[in-house]
Amino acid sequence: MPRIVQKFGGTSVADLERIRNAALRVKREADAGNEIAVVVSAMAGTTNQLVGWTRQMSRLHDAREYDVVVSSGEQVTAGLMAMALQDLGLNARSWLGWQVPIRTDGVHSKARIEAIDTAELERRFAEGQISVVAGFQGIGPRGRVTTLGRGGSDTSAVALAAALNAERCDIFTDVDGVYTTDPRIVAKAQKLSRITYEEMLEMASQGARVLQTRSVELAMNHRVRLQVLSSFTDTPGTLVVDEDEIVEKRVVSGIAYSRDEAKITVQRVADRPGVAAAIFGPLADNAINVDMIVQNISADGKTDLTFTVSRADLDRAVEVLQGCREALGFDALKPDPNVVKVSVIGVGMRSHAGVAKQMFQTLADKGINIQVISTSEIKVSVLIAADYTELALRALHTAYGLDGPG
Amino acid sequence: MPRIVQKFGGTSVADLERIRNAALRVKREADAGNEIAVVVSAMAGTTNQLVGWTRQMSRLHDAREYDVVVSSGEQVTAGLMAMALQDLGLNARSWLGWQVPIRTDGVHSKARIEAIDTAELERRFAEGQISVVAGFQGIGPRGRVTTLGRGGSDTSAVALAAALNAERCDIFTDVDGVYTTDPRIVAKAQKLSRITYEEMLEMASQGARVLQTRSVELAMNHRVRLQVLSSFTDTPGTLVVDEDEIVEKRVVSGIAYSRDEAKITVQRVADRPGVAAAIFGPLADNAINVDMIVQNISADGKTDLTFTVSRADLDRAVEVLQGCREALGFDALKPDPNVVKVSVIGVGMRSHAGVAKQMFQTLADKGINIQVISTSEIKVSVLIAADYTELALRALHTAYGLDGPG
Repeated sequence: MPRIVQKFGGTSVADLERIRNAALRVKREADAGNEIAVVVSAMAGTTNQLVGWTRQMSRLHDAREYDVVVSSGEQVTAGLMAMALQDLGLNARSWLGWQVPIRTDGVHSKARIEAIDTAELERRFAEGQISVVAGFQGIGPRGRVTTLGRGGSDTSAVALAAALNAERCDIFTDVDGVYTTDPRIVAKAQKLSRITYEEMLEMASQGARVLQTRSVELAMNHRVRLQVLSSFTDTPGTLVVDEDEIVEKRVVSGIAYSRDEAKITVQRVADRPGVAAAIFGPLADNAINVDMIVQNISADGKTDLTFTVSRADLDRAVEVLQGCREALGFDALKPDPNVVKVSVIGVGMRSHAGVAKQMFQTLADKGINIQVISTSEIKVSVLIAADYTELALRALHTAYGLDGPG
Repeated sequence: MPRIVQKFGGTSVADLERIRNAALRVKREADAGNEIAVVVSAMAGTTNQLVGWTRQMSRLHDAREYDVVVSSGEQVTAGLMAMALQDLGLNARSWLGWQVPIRTDGVHSKARIEAIDTAELERRFAEGQISVVAGFQGIGPRGRVTTLGRGGSDTSAVALAAALNAERCDIFTDVDGVYTTDPRIVAKAQKLSRITYEEMLEMASQGARVLQTRSVELAMNHRVRLQVLSSFTDTPGTLVVDEDEIVEKRVVSGIAYSRDEAKITVQRVADRPGVAAAIFGPLADNAINVDMIVQNISADGKTDLTFTVSRADLDRAVEVLQGCREALGFDALKPDPNVVKVSVIGVGMRSHAGVAKQMFQTLADKGINIQVISTSEIKVSVLIAADYTELALRALHTAYGLDGPG
């Protein structure tokens, strides 16, 4: 019997009525002869409230207790969803992370799934029972509740689909698919019917919020066919699949942007071997991730080094570097939170030259200054002043031939 | 080291500020050199909301899923309380029912605790760690979450105190102790400094809502010294103890009342052997508990039978009996929800005659008609019209010499 994992995000289970509607979608697939496992997020707003409480409660913020508090949201939805399915005459039961069990490492509040024991779920499939699994949560090596980081229910769903050898993993959300770019900014953005794992991974990690990056990585590694679709409409969504499943390839599939960026320039630091390590070592030690890096041409033995960190880490990064000022011997630190990272993404770049050049030219034509550049095999990212975000997105969207009827 | 269990009810942990205040009370006992286990309820209002959702979600109301949903409230408080204690510099961690584990039977939504495995908690005491246990919940024989019924956190606390051989179990609530009667009705009600288990058990089961009946039963069986006190004041509460710990005994310690009663009269039923079984059998089969029963003197082979059920069961009880009308052969059923049960309670009754007589006389003097009477060794209960509740309570409170300065 074909097997499908259906995952419902927070807005798709925001209240009892929506949970009932989601249950009807499950019933439809069950009636069509599929074995179904359902993964649910917390009701929209719940996780934010719980996270807020933990922040207000303690400066110390024990991540193990955070996980206990925050995981309760998915527990509620799992129970309610099982009830809704039963009410439709289906055989269903809820599973909490520790019950399945979904085993994770011990990194509380951002744990990684290590193994899912599917024996019990398989037994239930054989009995015709639908399993409703609480997303976002697992059990750590010491028997404590863990959570997978914000958006972690996507990862729960994909991991479950992989462990169960599901034919497809449907991610129901409040958008009806993956778009060439953010349709709230670019009216002519088009929904993609298919996108490759690699592109989706870049889209997610470059700022598109439709899927948790980790979940795409996992889908790619296990070749889980993902579908992103809306629980509010009946239009088909976007399939995230292997490259060879896509016949008509575009050079550029999408344009992502991330406002979660901040730039730091270290001015006039000694240009000698080891200086990069001296700067980035202390940041890494403080769990601050550095993304883009550019180093200027050296003049009189001094150089400027510019890099980006997540905006939330900016103040802490400056603090850490000021603490090493004597050792580093720089003249000044220039932090700048008013930047945005814009990325053009497409597997077609591998075989098409000139994608980057077209990007730079398009931005130059609009008078937009590029501050930092970084590239990968299927992506070109630039850092620009935040004020130019919308202008840049629209210009690039047109330049790469992505505009739809709008 | 002396060991204390401190239990905080819903109003005592209603918001973050109150959880912090409760944590300060824990710290005070810890600083005084005690080993502490904390049991927490859900934040006030949470359980009602969760129960409401389950009711709205499904007519079928799978009690296993109800337990999954409803137990999440205590989970949140346990995590937040552990954080609050850590923030005060204490070593603390939360425990969910399945983690301890608190093993229960499989009767979902009103499970009974069968065993508490304290090995891990003992190990934490030895390390100086405070254990914060989510009340109201356990794990059933098949590894599913169970809950103990409304007010079940009291039972969690007492069971834990018994299992840990605690010196005392403090139940923090929104009243500062057990009163001779409801102070909202009788202004001259007095707080009792001590009350026996037997009396407390009768008070709880006859309508006083300060403790879950099951928790008092458990405390009595295991001789757990209970203290009921307010988390909002620093006045001493009421100790629930063994009879021999009470030096100055009153004849009557308290007057309880319950509005959760309804009366049914089965008119002119055949007065033959087996008729009571024929009536009460079907009710028992439908899980309807019958409390007080009175049978009239027979006339021409027919009799009237009057009994009480919980008000919530009234409609269903009438339905069940109408269904057996042919077999029972009665003339009519008279249901009456407008009744209240008033009980005078005291271990002194065992050695003092005339308590019941004084009750009947007092009510007669006020013109209050007694509809049904039932007695036990330490209690006399009467059913009267609900309109007379306040009048009866005040008159009896005065008659038994319970009035304080008021």
